[in-house]
Amino acid sequence: MNTIENQLSVFALGGIREIGKNMYVIQYADDIFVIDCGGKFPDESEPGVDLLIQDISYLQQHQEKIRALIVTHGHEDHIGGIPYFLKQLNVPVYATRFTLGLITLKLKEHRLFRQTELNLIHEDSTLSVGAVQVTFFKTNHSIPDCLGIIFDTPEGTVVHTGDFKFDFSPVHDEYADLHKMAEIGKNGVLLLLSESTNAERPGFNSSERLIGKHLEEAFQKASRKVFVSTFASNVHRLQQVVDAAQKTGRKLALLGRSMVNVVEVASEIGYLQMPPDMLIDKTDIDQMDPEKVAVLCTGSQGEPMAALSRLANGSFRQAEILPEDTVIFASSPIPGNEKSVSRIIDRLFLLGADVIYGSGKETGMHVSGHAYQEELKLMLSLMKPKYFIPIHGEYRMLEKHRQLAESVGVEKDHIFVLDNGDVVDIQRGKATQTRTLQAGTVFVDGSGIGDVGNTVLRDRKQLSEEGMLVIVMTLEKSNGQIIGHPKTVSRGFVYIRDSKELLDEVDELIRQTIGHLNSAEGVSKKRLKQEVRKAVENFLFERTKRKPVILPIVIEV
Amino acid sequence: MNTIENQLSVFALGGIREIGKNMYVIQYADDIFVIDCGGKFPDESEPGVDLLIQDISYLQQHQEKIRALIVTHGHEDHIGGIPYFLKQLNVPVYATRFTLGLITLKLKEHRLFRQTELNLIHEDSTLSVGAVQVTFFKTNHSIPDCLGIIFDTPEGTVVHTGDFKFDFSPVHDEYADLHKMAEIGKNGVLLLLSESTNAERPGFNSSERLIGKHLEEAFQKASRKVFVSTFASNVHRLQQVVDAAQKTGRKLALLGRSMVNVVEVASEIGYLQMPPDMLIDKTDIDQMDPEKVAVLCTGSQGEPMAALSRLANGSFRQAEILPEDTVIFASSPIPGNEKSVSRIIDRLFLLGADVIYGSGKETGMHVSGHAYQEELKLMLSLMKPKYFIPIHGEYRMLEKHRQLAESVGVEKDHIFVLDNGDVVDIQRGKATQTRTLQAGTVFVDGSGIGDVGNTVLRDRKQLSEEGMLVIVMTLEKSNGQIIGHPKTVSRGFVYIRDSKELLDEVDELIRQTIGHLNSAEGVSKKRLKQEVRKAVENFLFERTKRKPVILPIVIEV
Repeated sequence: MNTIENQLSVFALGGIREIGKNMYVIQYADDIFVIDCGGKFPDESEPGVDLLIQDISYLQQHQEKIRALIVTHGHEDHIGGIPYFLKQLNVPVYATRFTLGLITLKLKEHRLFRQTELNLIHEDSTLSVGAVQVTFFKTNHSIPDCLGIIFDTPEGTVVHTGDFKFDFSPVHDEYADLHKMAEIGKNGVLLLLSESTNAERPGFNSSERLIGKHLEEAFQKASRKVFVSTFASNVHRLQQVVDAAQKTGRKLALLGRSMVNVVEVASEIGYLQMPPDMLIDKTDIDQMDPEKVAVLCTGSQGEPMAALSRLANGSFRQAEILPEDTVIFASSPIPGNEKSVSRIIDRLFLLGADVIYGSGKETGMHVSGHAYQEELKLMLSLMKPKYFIPIHGEYRMLEKHRQLAESVGVEKDHIFVLDNGDVVDIQRGKATQTRTLQAGTVFVDGSGIGDVGNTVLRDRKQLSEEGMLVIVMTLEKSNGQIIGHPKTVSRGFVYIRDSKELLDEVDELIRQTIGHLNSAEGVSKKRLKQEVRKAVENFLFERTKRKPVILPIVIEV
Repeated sequence: MNTIENQLSVFALGGIREIGKNMYVIQYADDIFVIDCGGKFPDESEPGVDLLIQDISYLQQHQEKIRALIVTHGHEDHIGGIPYFLKQLNVPVYATRFTLGLITLKLKEHRLFRQTELNLIHEDSTLSVGAVQVTFFKTNHSIPDCLGIIFDTPEGTVVHTGDFKFDFSPVHDEYADLHKMAEIGKNGVLLLLSESTNAERPGFNSSERLIGKHLEEAFQKASRKVFVSTFASNVHRLQQVVDAAQKTGRKLALLGRSMVNVVEVASEIGYLQMPPDMLIDKTDIDQMDPEKVAVLCTGSQGEPMAALSRLANGSFRQAEILPEDTVIFASSPIPGNEKSVSRIIDRLFLLGADVIYGSGKETGMHVSGHAYQEELKLMLSLMKPKYFIPIHGEYRMLEKHRQLAESVGVEKDHIFVLDNGDVVDIQRGKATQTRTLQAGTVFVDGSGIGDVGNTVLRDRKQLSEEGMLVIVMTLEKSNGQIIGHPKTVSRGFVYIRDSKELLDEVDELIRQTIGHLNSAEGVSKKRLKQEVRKAVENFLFERTKRKPVILPIVIEV
């Protein structure tokens, strides 16, 4: 037994100073609870990478202490990393019905379903492990079945909000449990971890029901087919699309694998309700009276392979968008996706469609799932925490959330704006932040986890910006003499057809450089490569102002 | 003389279905007028490209007919391509004082200043060429000295708005000439070309003066240094920063080459007014009382080499941002720049600065320079054109602008939503759109114009996403036998250190493939490359789910 045994520690392995790959850890004595395991999608600085996940070295070192992976809800930034996590650490998973449904789809895809222990929880579940009791409270968000988590420890109570907003008129009457939150706060919260995604937005978010109203109006106005694109996981929005279709006498087709999957999962467990004859097959879309058809499809973020992109390009085999059809983006582009979404809107207008996009109180087709500033203050006011850690957000959001916490009375030096890996230790009621664990980003590329890193990405970036030139030279092994003509091959550098002259000059330059180097004693491979690279690099930069990757290869025969 | 001699034709070579590289052409009989010559910055699908400009083949074929390049204002998307244009076509340039100042900076940089004929125009200038009379009208925009253009031709009057907004309380009392616009409309406009950048935004834009008020409030509140970042060319905003500094007793330092250049040009011609002792050197910033210093700097778009990025990274030698300094983004990120701007805001918060960003009526530090929907309708209502072409904008903006024009009474089939290269011909008062000229994008990369194209960019993209593997094999020239060991080199594919096993297997696979191919008759180079590429490609995809560029090279000795 060492001295930190009965200490409460809280830290993030992902989701701090970034959006995505959320993972938070609560440890009391020898019991570790992992909260969420998200994946983050790469941006333009990570070309060719499929997913970014957490460095879980610390958890691997303390594998025997991990009691549970508790998942707050089923969004990708909270469940996307689970298959990769479970391949490394086989721990029991706890989640609500809908969240488990989405996790199950992932596990089956990765052939991990049979070997994983899945535990169903709900807002009244209790998990008792050692000295810690874990309970839950219901929240609103843009996906059903979201929970906040309460850890009652001998040190005090830690609350993790998950993602949330306050929706006082939720679809399906799925009310957040305000009274339980008030009760928790009344009993005393030692530490609150609360999400920060919309900490930059002033005011109070709108209810999801607003979208239902706008959808119905648009459906009523539409004279031909209506296409609605949204995140498949937003079941409450799907329900409102179903309702609008039903009220206006339209049947509904589903396009896109995740849309079909989610509708199946959500219908099975009764979260999505529709008349039995509502759904039609995608092959029926163009066979029916266009006034009688609505289509729910994936691709609202401009994903190039999703249903909406293919419809916009006219490359979707079973259905097509025709003049006077209506296309509704019930979504908002995630930062980084603005351009690809715009391109699709352009193409849809070109097809003659009436395209409805953007948010806004009057006609908007999207509201965010995350709490605005006044809602974040409401959560802080309900919980009245002694200590506070803003989570889920880039640094400026965490900083704004810090300011909000201060404004409702949390003491300035009781707020910890962390980085991933930073640890907050609490002992005898006092929290300190002095140590940092290994944390960072692991790249998933194809089937490899972690075999692509920053060096590889730097190479890819240079290759992408300037292309490359390979120079193969042949060396006589016996005497170190250069023989034959060097050979150059380029990719991504210049049009070879139009640049023969330039490439001929490069050949000549290499021959000259080699000529200077060749001597009776021969030349070392290293020196040969160095000199040729330098000469060609300088020449090309002077002539083209470009710096392709120069790759000299020496063959010995 | 051919039949189309006395025809009026209007077309775009850039700026239609895109933002940037604007270029419009008005031709009457044998007289061609080119309007604007912008450059467009590349996005992530054009890695390593410096600038996108127009394909001007048509103009090169009719070089002797070009009478003028008329420039409406000095923004990059209207002047950025001028040096490359003039290198190919040396035609006289017409522009206002400030615009000419910015063009001159560019021409000097490209050593084109001496050989170019520059003509100064103002709102009352008249240009008479053949049967065409060209006059101008003053507009408001986010840069001084903007003009709309009127072409009076025997066919009728064509009006080109340039970029504009309506600002009824402009800085420097630089009022747009509403009365002249009304007069033009009253006399009858055959064809209007009007800009569409903000055609998606409902309502009426705010006055630039709003920013002055917000700047002054922020300056008053600031307890230490204030940094303001904005587009250097927005001289009216620079003036308001100067005024706020003056009112709060601060001296002003300038950071960034374009800021220094523009302040010099604008001060010289009296467009920017400040007390003679206002400016301090950048080396004085950290020497003075922080309450007495303001800094105007470039980099509001997150450009990595600009002053603000370097300040945020702590790599700016002469000055530094300290806790409680204020940093104001008097700007809005251009689509595509959101992430890099966010990253800088994050870093500034990390330095402890108070960062003010975002737009909004209450505290916002940016208003757009482009007309909103009601302003576009005002322009259409003033001009009352018979025919209308929406310009400057992506397709959805052009389409929205088309709808606006219809809503104020322009006949539906009198509106032409074009693509670049499309021509509208007008003869005997009737406009038709039946022909299309060569138009498109030329890439400037380093010092090359047009030597990089789509094939090269496709290669760069594949290289960037998956990296590459070069395989060098040696063939005995005399008998076509493969000799020695093949050699593989990879870049941007996997960590070589961690993937020795995989790469060894590739070596073995190549040897096997070669073994199957080698025979007494030898093997053709083409077949050898093909078979090896196929084998390695399949193997790597199966093992890594990646498809690097495989580049087999055969050396004959």
